[in-house]
Amino acid sequence: MTHCLIIGAAGMLGAGLAEALLAKSAIAGKSIAKLTLFDLFEAKTRDTAVALDIRAGDLSAPGTAEALIESRPDVIYHLAAIVSGEAERDFEKGYRINLDGTRHLLEAIRRAQASAPGYRPRFVFASSLAVFGSPLPDIIADDHILTPRSSYGTQKAIGELLLADYSRRGFVDGIGIRLPTICIRPGKPNAAASGFFSGILREPLAGKPALLPVATSVRHWFASPRSAIGYLVHAAEVDAAQLAENRNLTMPGVSATVADEIEALRKKAGDEAVALIKHEADPAIEAIISTWPKAFDTKRALSLGFVPDASFEAIVEAYLEDHASEAR
Amino acid sequence: MTHCLIIGAAGMLGAGLAEALLAKSAIAGKSIAKLTLFDLFEAKTRDTAVALDIRAGDLSAPGTAEALIESRPDVIYHLAAIVSGEAERDFEKGYRINLDGTRHLLEAIRRAQASAPGYRPRFVFASSLAVFGSPLPDIIADDHILTPRSSYGTQKAIGELLLADYSRRGFVDGIGIRLPTICIRPGKPNAAASGFFSGILREPLAGKPALLPVATSVRHWFASPRSAIGYLVHAAEVDAAQLAENRNLTMPGVSATVADEIEALRKKAGDEAVALIKHEADPAIEAIISTWPKAFDTKRALSLGFVPDASFEAIVEAYLEDHASEAR
Repeated sequence: MTHCLIIGAAGMLGAGLAEALLAKSAIAGKSIAKLTLFDLFEAKTRDTAVALDIRAGDLSAPGTAEALIESRPDVIYHLAAIVSGEAERDFEKGYRINLDGTRHLLEAIRRAQASAPGYRPRFVFASSLAVFGSPLPDIIADDHILTPRSSYGTQKAIGELLLADYSRRGFVDGIGIRLPTICIRPGKPNAAASGFFSGILREPLAGKPALLPVATSVRHWFASPRSAIGYLVHAAEVDAAQLAENRNLTMPGVSATVADEIEALRKKAGDEAVALIKHEADPAIEAIISTWPKAFDTKRALSLGFVPDASFEAIVEAYLEDHASEAR
Repeated sequence: MTHCLIIGAAGMLGAGLAEALLAKSAIAGKSIAKLTLFDLFEAKTRDTAVALDIRAGDLSAPGTAEALIESRPDVIYHLAAIVSGEAERDFEKGYRINLDGTRHLLEAIRRAQASAPGYRPRFVFASSLAVFGSPLPDIIADDHILTPRSSYGTQKAIGELLLADYSRRGFVDGIGIRLPTICIRPGKPNAAASGFFSGILREPLAGKPALLPVATSVRHWFASPRSAIGYLVHAAEVDAAQLAENRNLTMPGVSATVADEIEALRKKAGDEAVALIKHEADPAIEAIISTWPKAFDTKRALSLGFVPDASFEAIVEAYLEDHASEAR
């Protein structure tokens, strides 16, 4: 019997992960007896035989982390974060949530171990490609230096270092996974610089127009929400011995250009869907995107059993299956 | 007119740096009007025309960093740290001093800027080769990934990330320099795993026996105290435009084997000095040292004007000149 805690459970990935864990009903061969869902506000759930503990709070507030660890969860997912744009706008908030929040959590686990010897949970940390900064090679290996060019990336890189040290010292059994850009992100268009990667597919699939602010030659690294959730589930099951001292790794993905995206859309929804994409260059977004990674060598993650989407077409198919009602 | 603050001013490097600044009397073309020396205990000084402000305290205590920044020093040296062995033994103390201490300092500067627009001091951070972890190539480039294998190395790597982000955001004008292993370290033998690198020279030069716990083929990266202090002085004068976004760099050094050390000793003090070295293998120390770096490609630091010792013999000569009374 095992108890899973998801911190950041109300977000897209957190909610999908909770659903995946309930559907799977076991992790690493142990049946899931309890699921604790934590976020700034209460996560929505469905009826289930699993004991649910739904909580809301601020991870950076004193005592919050301790309260979450009090019941000694066996598997802890830490997905909560202030996103890139907000961490850049609000320096103090980004450090408070993304750095202090992560550290409070690791510290609460370390102190819990002092009173409960042998307590050493699997700790899955959602890291980000933002730990990498320009100049970048066309294909980035797992041993590429972390030179983040944003406060968010800095906070994630520090989280990775803490995770590795707390794991080396035996306080947690940690794994940090750098998730690709999620595509197709469901829901409404947003203001993120990366928003168009999903928007140019999601909107035309719903019969709506979409803006493309960059050239079709732009290349980036993608995973479907389904694959990203699969990575999170699998991260709780990877053998710690295989991780050894290198606790942080980049997740597999599909390297695709915007042109590849458009061709996948054409195959699934025809020329009339493609015609809904309007190309209007935005130099500000082009400048941001130009510093982003294009592709990764993820042989380590692949050898550890993380399974990516088969192709960009498969990413579009997964969206159509999971969001049939939102597509036209 | 400029005001320099040295945090960690009572240590070997801090005291040497204070003396070097007083002797040089100017930094980056501005004459030094004031020198603030801070450490856990009061630093010793000599008579000088420069205004001295000698302080003692705990950098991790609330308000200490703010009080140090109150007078708006133009150049800040942050050399204070719990050393590797102690940070490994006392987890909480290591993080409190090496991580929180550094962060308090950067935060105090950021907040000072809010009330004194334009305040953006040069911040020289003493980092360490301990940011690098095995497996390591024979020659380590500046873009090698940081995978520290100690809590001390983790804390220094986090310091480097913070320094880069606070510099990118314009709060400080930071430079992090990874110092080589200091050799010949003056004073008494100590318990550090690296102690023998200095001991096998310093003790025989004083007519005393010394233990060598590793094979003579062991290779490592060295700088004399004189060169290390020279790096610190120069770090305050490097043009920020040349640093651009990469604020942390490995300092030049001399790559030498223990056999090279012994030959340098023979040339300077003869066979009788060499005969005082007793080889007694210590598997524990051999295991630690086997994971340490052997040599670095430091072309970036060299191009920025950091000047290393010319050879291992020059390192021994520098010691004999600076410590004539302690050598026989």
